[in-house]
Formats: sequence, C-alpha cells, structure tokens
Amino acid sequence: MPITNFADRLLAAIDQRQTPLILGLDPVYEKLPAAITSQAGKNDPTRAGDCVNAMLEFCRQIIDVVAAHVPAVKINSAYFERYQWLGWQAYGRLVQESRAAGLLVIGDVKRADIGHTAEQYAAAALADNDFSDLGHLSGPDAITINPYFGFDGIKPFTDIAQKMGKGVFILLRTSNPSAGEIQEIPAADGRPLYQHVADRMDAWAQGLMGTCGFSSIGAVVGATTRDSLIHLRRALPHTLFLIPGIGAQGGNLQDCAHVFDRAGHGAVISASRSIIFAYRDKKYAGFADQQWSKAVLQSVLDTRREITAALHETQR
Amino acid sequence: MPITNFADRLLAAIDQRQTPLILGLDPVYEKLPAAITSQAGKNDPTRAGDCVNAMLEFCRQIIDVVAAHVPAVKINSAYFERYQWLGWQAYGRLVQESRAAGLLVIGDVKRADIGHTAEQYAAAALADNDFSDLGHLSGPDAITINPYFGFDGIKPFTDIAQKMGKGVFILLRTSNPSAGEIQEIPAADGRPLYQHVADRMDAWAQGLMGTCGFSSIGAVVGATTRDSLIHLRRALPHTLFLIPGIGAQGGNLQDCAHVFDRAGHGAVISASRSIIFAYRDKKYAGFADQQWSKAVLQSVLDTRREITAALHETQR
Repeated sequence: MPITNFADRLLAAIDQRQTPLILGLDPVYEKLPAAITSQAGKNDPTRAGDCVNAMLEFCRQIIDVVAAHVPAVKINSAYFERYQWLGWQAYGRLVQESRAAGLLVIGDVKRADIGHTAEQYAAAALADNDFSDLGHLSGPDAITINPYFGFDGIKPFTDIAQKMGKGVFILLRTSNPSAGEIQEIPAADGRPLYQHVADRMDAWAQGLMGTCGFSSIGAVVGATTRDSLIHLRRALPHTLFLIPGIGAQGGNLQDCAHVFDRAGHGAVISASRSIIFAYRDKKYAGFADQQWSKAVLQSVLDTRREITAALHETQR
Repeated sequence: MPITNFADRLLAAIDQRQTPLILGLDPVYEKLPAAITSQAGKNDPTRAGDCVNAMLEFCRQIIDVVAAHVPAVKINSAYFERYQWLGWQAYGRLVQESRAAGLLVIGDVKRADIGHTAEQYAAAALADNDFSDLGHLSGPDAITINPYFGFDGIKPFTDIAQKMGKGVFILLRTSNPSAGEIQEIPAADGRPLYQHVADRMDAWAQGLMGTCGFSSIGAVVGATTRDSLIHLRRALPHTLFLIPGIGAQGGNLQDCAHVFDRAGHGAVISASRSIIFAYRDKKYAGFADQQWSKAVLQSVLDTRREITAALHETQR
C-alpha cells in the first residue's frame, strides 16, 4: 500500500465527516463521571493505575460516540504522563484504539530538541514501532512540536513524517495571555517575531506537500485576533492550521473562519474540555449521570453546527 | 527538614566536588559495551525490555564510578522515551537511584505548555509523587523547559520548583547550527531575539533566589561565541547557566570560563557522549573491554582537569 501524505489523509477525513472539528482528549480523573469512577479498579484516586484505567475507559466511550462525527482526535500526552509509565502505556493504547476506530490521531506532545535527541523523540512519539516484546505500536498520525531550535529541531520529525506518511504541527502563535512576551517581540522590520517564524515555516512546508495543495507540516495557531489569523493565512497559503482553544478557552469562530477556503479546507479546530466534560455543563443538565456520553455526543453535534454556521456566515 | 533552594543545593554540591562538570546520560543501546549487551536479558536489540535493561545497567555502573566526582547528572529522557513505557519506567528508576547515590539530577525533558497542561507536565516530570500503587517517586531536582509560550509556560514549573525546593533550566540560546533561525532574529532595537528572552528571564529569576545569590531558575546556554556568553552573563547576573555540548559537540572551554565568578560559580558544564562512550575513543584504547567503566572514570577526571585549567587560565 502506498504511503499517503498526511495532509491528504486529513483533508479526506474532513470531507468525509464534513467538519474541521477535532476532539481534544485532555482527561482529568477528578472530572470524570461517577458512572466510571465508582467502578472497582477505577475508584481510588491515590492509585495511578485506577486513575489511568478510568481515563482509558472514559476516552474509549467517547471515541465510540464521536468516531463517526469528527475526522481526528488530539490526545494530550501530559494528562497521561502525569501517571508516569502507567499513563504512558495508556496513552499508547489510546493512540492505537483511536486509529483502529477510524480516527486520525494528533499526539499533542509538544516535543522539541536537536540532532540525535530529536531523532529519539521522533522515534518515540511519532514513528510506528515494532519491538518484539511490545508488538506493533502505531504512533499517532501527527504530533505537535516546538520551533525554538530552528530547523535542526524540526527536520528529525519531518524526516519521520515523510518516511511514514505522517505530519507535524509546529507551535507558531499561541493564544495564552503571555504568549506575546516572546512571540510578539517586534523584529527589526516592525513585524512581531511569530510572523518571522511563519516565514520560515512556509519554506519548511514545501518539503511535504500533498496533492491537496497543503503540506503535512502544519502550524498551531491560536484564535487570537482576526487580523493575525488573516495575516497568517496569507503568509502560509499551504499550511494547515491547528486552532486550539475553541470552547473552554474562548476564541472566536467567526475570526477562525477566515483561514478556511471555500471547500472548507485550511484548518482543524480543536475543542477539548467544552466537549469531553459537557455532562458537567448546565447546558446539558438534561442528561442523567449514566447518560454522560450522550451529553458529549450532543456537544460534538452542537459544536459542529456552530462551526459550519460560522464558516457559511463569513464566506457569504 | 526545611526545603533548601535548588541553586543553593547545586552550588554546595559544586563546591563539595570542586567542579562544575556534570555528566549527561544519553545512553544508546547500539553503543553500549559488549560486556553489557552480551548478557542474557540484555542482548536482543529487537526487545525494548532488553534495550532498557542494558541501558539501566550501563547507567548504574557509570553512576557508581562518577558519583564522587561530579555534582550532578543530566538524564536525557528522549533516550528512554524511545522505548515507550518501559523506557519511561527506567528513566524514573534512574532518577531515583542517582539521587540515592548523592547526585543532583537534572531531568533533560524540554517540556513546555501552558495552564493546566503545563501543570500536568510539571507534576509528571518535576514533582515528587506518591501514588499508593507506585510508591514514593522522587522527581529530578530540576528539569529543562522551553520558553516559547512566555511566562504562562514557565510559572506552572516554577511553582512546583518553589514548593519542592527544585529548579528549572529554560532554553535560552542553543548551539545547534540553525538555532539562529529563530533565536537570532534581530529585534527592533537591533539585538537578537535571545537577548530579549534573557531580559525576561532575569525578571523571572527574581522569584526563586537562593542565599547564594543565584536563582533556581537557570538557563540553557550553548557555548556558541565568547561574546554571546559574556553578554548573557552581564544580562543575567543571578542566573546559573547549563552549558551543554562540551566534548562531543565541540564548544570552547576558555569561552565558557567567562560566565564563572572567582568562586567557580555561575554555571554547570555538561559533557555526555565524550564521557559515557569514552571506551569507544582511541584516547582510552588502553582499557580492556571489561574495563569500560574505568575509561569513563578516566574521562571524567580528564574533563574535570581541563575545565579547572580553563577557569584558572581565564581568571588569571
């Protein structure tokens, strides 16, 4: 089977599911439904094993209900690493199971290093692995990485991406309050730093172009301001954006719509807490405790609808 | 027992061992001595378990021979993560055992994120943990982190550092060839980006000052040029530098000497491959295969001597 370019695979999945919404899995034991955390083997928060089992069960049920409705999940490794090697093992299982359910998987690991160390991270966090004692381990389809080292810190990851038909999303402009401390330092030409990083990314992106016109080297771009999104779309015409922070973190869907083309391509929009913890939201209080996954599904469908409306509104 | 500031603990260890040399543990299975990789349970490179067992054995023997001669080890997690959860478990064990051997431990994990996710990374990679099923797990004394998010991405780590008497080393100016692509983008005032990051770091450092006059918030600074090292020392008078890349990666000890004060304080200098793989070096060919750890020890002693000579030379 020929290896297909990640950008091509992602756009095909977006077309098939008819939405750029992807689901962020950031499970927190303390917020899980009692229907799960009351079960034996999942009810002792002092045991890493219980926490991890509960988180896995939670994510599995979510994947069951959302797999037909979103093209991809973004699994945040930090929430698993929290539970040491047991968490890491669970993260790997969830990557496998999500792929088996027909979802693309973005491993939100935010790794970065250079040279041989970066090769190790790429082999650990992005590659498929075959250890004879661990069996075949499919890595995620793409991961997030940090650009601070320059291209030396990017290439070991894009090499694996190219070889295995995978992708990377490079942190470009994040939406946290202090992001500007570094990312908006004005450069000699008056433009903020992140626009210079974008210039470099556009050059890097040329290496992994898909037939769809987008590269498998994408960018993490927060929904900060309409102007910055429009600027970055122009600066990076072939780059898929991963826009986090819709929902719980705020972020304006109308602004995000400017980075999409008329085919609905150009970005994935990630929502995490607003969906996976929907059953804790007053808006979905009508669902009984045991029905928590139905609240999650309803929230996915509602968020899809909001995104579709925003895209149509802006493109009219 | 009162929690002691990390910077104070590190300087005390440097004074006690009389060297700022720290040992980087970046074990690579394929380079380990045959004396280890020929053993049953450690001789099958297709098994993650064998690789990890061999790496642990290798690092344990190294710790035995170097513990009296260096103040700290820097353990690079990527080389362990490579072997999935088995590697992560081994990394955790090595952190514990290194601390038990009287060494300070810097976890070279290069993590970064914001908000709740960064709190998870800080809990995972820096904090001490007590899970009832995993027992007490001492985290490293300090870790490396990436500044691209601004202070939002720093504070969750420094909060844990403050609470537990630990430290962080923030990537500032790395020595890889393409580091300049981002770090040397000229800002509006003509100074390169990394000097602006340094300005911010000096403000951040105030939060965790030790009685020694240095902060527990340090900086990773490559041995790039004499001028950049001198500039950064002036810009960051209270910041301990972690200077990697001595030995295998090149880097000039005479240049590094400029960041130390007359008490021999101001930085730790990390050497990794040139020491841990010394037995593969012609210079130490006199040691028989079974004596590989003696080559490692000799290389530590030689590197210590070179550093001491460079410090005296420059400060004369």
